[in-house]
Amino acid sequence: MEPLAFRKLALTVEYDGAAYCGFQFQVDQPTVQGDIERALENTTGERIRVAGAGRTDAGVHARGQVVSFSTVSTLSEGSLIGALNHYLRPNIAVRSIREVANGFDARRDALSREYRYRILNSATPSPLERKYSCFIPAALDADAMGRACRCLVGVHDFASFTGPTARSTVREVYRAEVAREGDLVILDVAANSFLHKQVRSIAGALVRVGLGKLDSSEFEQLMQARQPALGGPVAPPQGLYLMRVIYPEEKFVKGS
Amino acid sequence: MEPLAFRKLALTVEYDGAAYCGFQFQVDQPTVQGDIERALENTTGERIRVAGAGRTDAGVHARGQVVSFSTVSTLSEGSLIGALNHYLRPNIAVRSIREVANGFDARRDALSREYRYRILNSATPSPLERKYSCFIPAALDADAMGRACRCLVGVHDFASFTGPTARSTVREVYRAEVAREGDLVILDVAANSFLHKQVRSIAGALVRVGLGKLDSSEFEQLMQARQPALGGPVAPPQGLYLMRVIYPEEKFVKGS
Repeated sequence: MEPLAFRKLALTVEYDGAAYCGFQFQVDQPTVQGDIERALENTTGERIRVAGAGRTDAGVHARGQVVSFSTVSTLSEGSLIGALNHYLRPNIAVRSIREVANGFDARRDALSREYRYRILNSATPSPLERKYSCFIPAALDADAMGRACRCLVGVHDFASFTGPTARSTVREVYRAEVAREGDLVILDVAANSFLHKQVRSIAGALVRVGLGKLDSSEFEQLMQARQPALGGPVAPPQGLYLMRVIYPEEKFVKGS
Repeated sequence: MEPLAFRKLALTVEYDGAAYCGFQFQVDQPTVQGDIERALENTTGERIRVAGAGRTDAGVHARGQVVSFSTVSTLSEGSLIGALNHYLRPNIAVRSIREVANGFDARRDALSREYRYRILNSATPSPLERKYSCFIPAALDADAMGRACRCLVGVHDFASFTGPTARSTVREVYRAEVAREGDLVILDVAANSFLHKQVRSIAGALVRVGLGKLDSSEFEQLMQARQPALGGPVAPPQGLYLMRVIYPEEKFVKGS
C-alpha cells in the first residue's frame, strides 16, 4: 500500500465581515477559520487546520484573503472549489485555488498585503453603502489626506498606529494613497505586513487630517512619536477590506 | 388666523430592497411607502400620503427613487432631511429634497426613469456582491447582449416583457446598453415609463442571448411577437436598481 500523498493548497477567499467574529477560530462563534475548516472536513473527511494570510478582525471584509492547508484528498482543484462553496455559507466563498510548495504558509510567506479602507463622505447616509464603508458626513479634504499619508511609505516604526505590544512595530509600507471617487474616499495601503488595527488606526487619523483637525506635519509627527495608540480612535471595521496578498511566484506549483 | 400653507416636496430616496416587500403600502409588511409615511408622521405630526415615481417590487433596490407629498410643516429642507433620516431605519435614507410645484406628482410627471440590472458573471460566487447582483457562473457574451438590446430603443409594444394586462403595453425606451466591468455585466435602460417586471424580463431574455441560446434577431422577434410573458423567466430582484427619475425643470420651485 502506497503512503498517503499530501498536497499543499492555497485558497483565495472572499467574505462579508459582518457575518464573522473575525478570522481566528473561536468556540461557539462564527469565524472565517471555523467555517473553512468545517467545509474542508465535509469535503475531504479530514480534520484540517488552515493558516490565513491576515487575521482580520470582527466585521472586516476580505476580497482576497489567502488560506493554506495540507490534504490527502485527490479531488481536482475545480471539484474542491465546487464542494467547498457548496458547504460554505453564502457570506463566504472560495474564489480560486492553487497548489503551493510543501512547507508553504499563507502568513509567513506573504511578500505583501494590500488593504483598502472605504469612507462614504456625503451629507446624507447611503443605505446601500452602510455595511461596506464608514460614513463621515462632514466634508473631507481627500487631497490633504493623500499628501499626509505619503510619509507612511518606507520602513518605519508604526507603534503609534497600534496598541501596546512587546513585539517589533517596524514595518515596511510599499504604497499609501487616498483617492476620491464621487462620494467615496478610498485609502489603499500595501505593506510587507501589518500591525493589529494598523490600517483602521491610520484611517482614523487621516479622517482627522481630512477634517482639518490635523495637518500633514502633525500626522507625520504622530507617526514619529512611536507611542502606542497615539494615532487616536480607530476607524470602524465595516470600511476595511483585505484586498490581496502577494507571494513569491516560486511558491506556486507550476500549472496549478 | 392665517390658513395653513401647504408646500409640495419631492424626496430622492435610496434603499436596500432586501429589507422591503416592495414600494407600495401593505398592512403588517415592511414597505418603502409605509416607512416613509411613518417617518413623515413622526417628523410633522401629519398623516401624509406619498406618491412614488416607480412601484419597485420586493427585493428591488433604489438609488434615486422620487417620492412626493404635501405638508404644512414649516421645517427647513435641511431639518426635514435630518429628522426623516433620524426616524427611518438604516436600510432607507432621504438623499436630497426639493420643493416642487403644486399639483406635482412623482409618478405622473416623470419624463424618464433609469433602471440598472447588475449581473455577476464569474466562475465562483461573490459574497460581497450576492445581495446586489444576479449570479450567472456560465460565461456571458456581453457584446452580443449589447447588440441585441439596441432593438429596444424607440416606441414599441413591450407586451412580451410583462404579464397579461388590459392596459397599453406601448412604451418609449430612450436608451438600452450593456457594458462589462470586470466580472460585472451591467444593463442600463431608460424609458418614459416601464411595465411591471419589464426590466427583469428584458434582463432574463438578454442573459439567454449572452449564453448563446438566443440570437439578436430571435430577441427582436420575441419583442415583436407582443405576447404576454413570451420573454421568459424574469431575472431575480436583487440585481435591479431604480437609479434616477427625471422631471421637467419647471416642476421644481427655483432656489429649492
